Amino acid sequence: MVEIIDGGITTPQGFKAAGVHSGVKYRSLDMGMVYSEVPATAYCAFTSNNVKAAPVQVMMEENSPTLSAVVINSGNANALTGHRGIEDVYTMKQVAAAELELDPKQVGVMSTGLIGRFLDMHKIRYGISRAAKTLDVGREADGLICQAIMTTDTIKKECAVRVRLSDGTLVYVAGISKGSGMIEPHMKVLHGTTLTIITTDATLGPDFADTWQSILDDTVNMVSVDGDQSTNDTCILLANGMSNSKPADRDPEFAAALRTIMTHIARCIATDGEGASKLIEVDVNGAASKEDARKAVKAIINSPLVKTAIFGADPNYGRIMMAIGKSGCAFDINEVRLTIKGGDMEVPILDSGSPVFQDERAVEVVRMAMDNKEVTIVVDLGVGEESSTGWGCDLTYDYVRINAEYAS
Amino acid sequence: MVEIIDGGITTPQGFKAAGVHSGVKYRSLDMGMVYSEVPATAYCAFTSNNVKAAPVQVMMEENSPTLSAVVINSGNANALTGHRGIEDVYTMKQVAAAELELDPKQVGVMSTGLIGRFLDMHKIRYGISRAAKTLDVGREADGLICQAIMTTDTIKKECAVRVRLSDGTLVYVAGISKGSGMIEPHMKVLHGTTLTIITTDATLGPDFADTWQSILDDTVNMVSVDGDQSTNDTCILLANGMSNSKPADRDPEFAAALRTIMTHIARCIATDGEGASKLIEVDVNGAASKEDARKAVKAIINSPLVKTAIFGADPNYGRIMMAIGKSGCAFDINEVRLTIKGGDMEVPILDSGSPVFQDERAVEVVRMAMDNKEVTIVVDLGVGEESSTGWGCDLTYDYVRINAEYAS
Repeated sequence: MVEIIDGGITTPQGFKAAGVHSGVKYRSLDMGMVYSEVPATAYCAFTSNNVKAAPVQVMMEENSPTLSAVVINSGNANALTGHRGIEDVYTMKQVAAAELELDPKQVGVMSTGLIGRFLDMHKIRYGISRAAKTLDVGREADGLICQAIMTTDTIKKECAVRVRLSDGTLVYVAGISKGSGMIEPHMKVLHGTTLTIITTDATLGPDFADTWQSILDDTVNMVSVDGDQSTNDTCILLANGMSNSKPADRDPEFAAALRTIMTHIARCIATDGEGASKLIEVDVNGAASKEDARKAVKAIINSPLVKTAIFGADPNYGRIMMAIGKSGCAFDINEVRLTIKGGDMEVPILDSGSPVFQDERAVEVVRMAMDNKEVTIVVDLGVGEESSTGWGCDLTYDYVRINAEYAS
Repeated sequence: MVEIIDGGITTPQGFKAAGVHSGVKYRSLDMGMVYSEVPATAYCAFTSNNVKAAPVQVMMEENSPTLSAVVINSGNANALTGHRGIEDVYTMKQVAAAELELDPKQVGVMSTGLIGRFLDMHKIRYGISRAAKTLDVGREADGLICQAIMTTDTIKKECAVRVRLSDGTLVYVAGISKGSGMIEPHMKVLHGTTLTIITTDATLGPDFADTWQSILDDTVNMVSVDGDQSTNDTCILLANGMSNSKPADRDPEFAAALRTIMTHIARCIATDGEGASKLIEVDVNGAASKEDARKAVKAIINSPLVKTAIFGADPNYGRIMMAIGKSGCAFDINEVRLTIKGGDMEVPILDSGSPVFQDERAVEVVRMAMDNKEVTIVVDLGVGEESSTGWGCDLTYDYVRINAEYAS
């Protein structure tokens, strides 16, 4: 049984973390580091965007099966920076490796921030060195690294759970993440700008990739803030085995623990989407295939017309059906059911292709359901047994403000 | 040679038009009608959205080769209205046919407005009857129908040209359109809520479908305001042959005339996109295939991050490369060129994968280019000879305001 606890990235045994100010950003913390006392089995997933940031290119190329540390800088994505960008990543690895007495291959690198500018390596070197010297265990260190990796994020994204594996070992799994804009990750194992780091003291062997991809596909890969996929999205799972558990690659308890954390992170990213005032959850059921269910979820959460309608609590549910129609998924218009949930309310909207009501007062009920911090759209396509859930957010004045002035 | 003239939908010989107030909208004109003195060869194109409005379903089913009149109501899309919606379309056809002494099959129907509400047929009947009685020729009638088909549109979308066909006949081609939101049409011949009507006194035979699809694919199908595809998009081309020209199906002069009109309409729709303050044109060259060029154009004009950056004249051009990368098109990062044009300025941004400059003052030049009513993004993917052009608009505070309160 998975138990959510008050914890962070250093809660699993053997992990330390730091968050410092290197000077890339004017004032905020902008350099984070995670360190494991022993080399950890590393499962990495990277963006599918064909324009990949320099750190993503290097990490994919090295494909190191174990990592002992990960360096994360925010404020500059080191993307579209050509050969110099690649060299800068190797320098970051070397500086961290020297500070921590590691092989540079044992150091992972993640970057997030503005695209198309070279890193100021003077500041980056200073930041890495300072982070290495302040590595620590505990809730303060947990909090500092969460802050250091933020860009337009407004809330800390962390989660920790405790679970007893099938072999009886009690293990801890924790995750931190950042991500607010340019968010519709399509991360492939070994191969989001969501940056996510998961630490665990469970042991993992070489057989966890499929389960990991399936968890990613059901969680962070089903989040969309703006339909834009970053050049930098990266998710790293570090399993250092310090619990002395048996390999948990096929342990359903471990998968459940990781799924709990990744679902929490997915919801957090959507809740904290740039300018968001509401979390939107979309549950599509009755689909002919998993692929169709995902297509329908994505079409709804990415539609600017649906997103603005929910911002305004405007009961324009025809836009939801428009999105389903353009998604290309199979559905039976005579069987489609649509329900909107918000707060304690659950309002049926559509049954067999026609609206359930036409009465203006009934429309007010829909508006009341939509006037909540969390709005859930439930759709049954009426043609099969497959389902999918995804998360997004409303499109607000603040979204426009934040993104019209980002580079300035 | 195609000559743009001051004209409208009734400029080609034999066409009349009307725009009246039926009462579906509180005050604005909301019912339009186009009429041809003789049956006109009709080429229709409809939305590819799988949720199709009732008028689209009926028009696709009847697939009438000729039409004598088209009725257009605004304020209510007659979509998601089940069997009753279908019956209402047949009634609209019958009422118009009776007024105009036509076979109901000779009457086309288009609707635009709110989705999921039944038409008030009392008002619709009255509107059709009044429109039929006020059909007229001339610039006043041209203007009234343009107004009557608007929803959130703020500018009249019309264009007229004169062209001498290869057989020596001087013909006229005119077009009107509406469309501001839910705009990324994928219209298929015989099969966008853009509503467009083209009238011409040229003669067309049965062989124009391929040319028509190709013109649609290069013009209105390359417009995206919000990436959402309407349930109602319809485009009708009416050729009544009253110029007594030979069939112009394969006449390059006629195709050029139509292409001029459709390009004008495409740019108009993008310029008048909901809340838009700027027109964005995207020209992608050097693509491996036409399909790749279109994918890259669409990814750029649909990216909310690119759209907000242009709204704020924020020189965050990394977002343009992010969009290209996520589009899936082939490109050579060592050959990619990116230029931003605005006003008299043409600023090279990217050459061979690295930014042309890093200097903060140079960034100001990009900002100045972006600070224009029309911004053009020119990309060379560096891998082939194919190209595509598309049009979109910026994402502004007004877009959010308009769409958060639409149904209210």
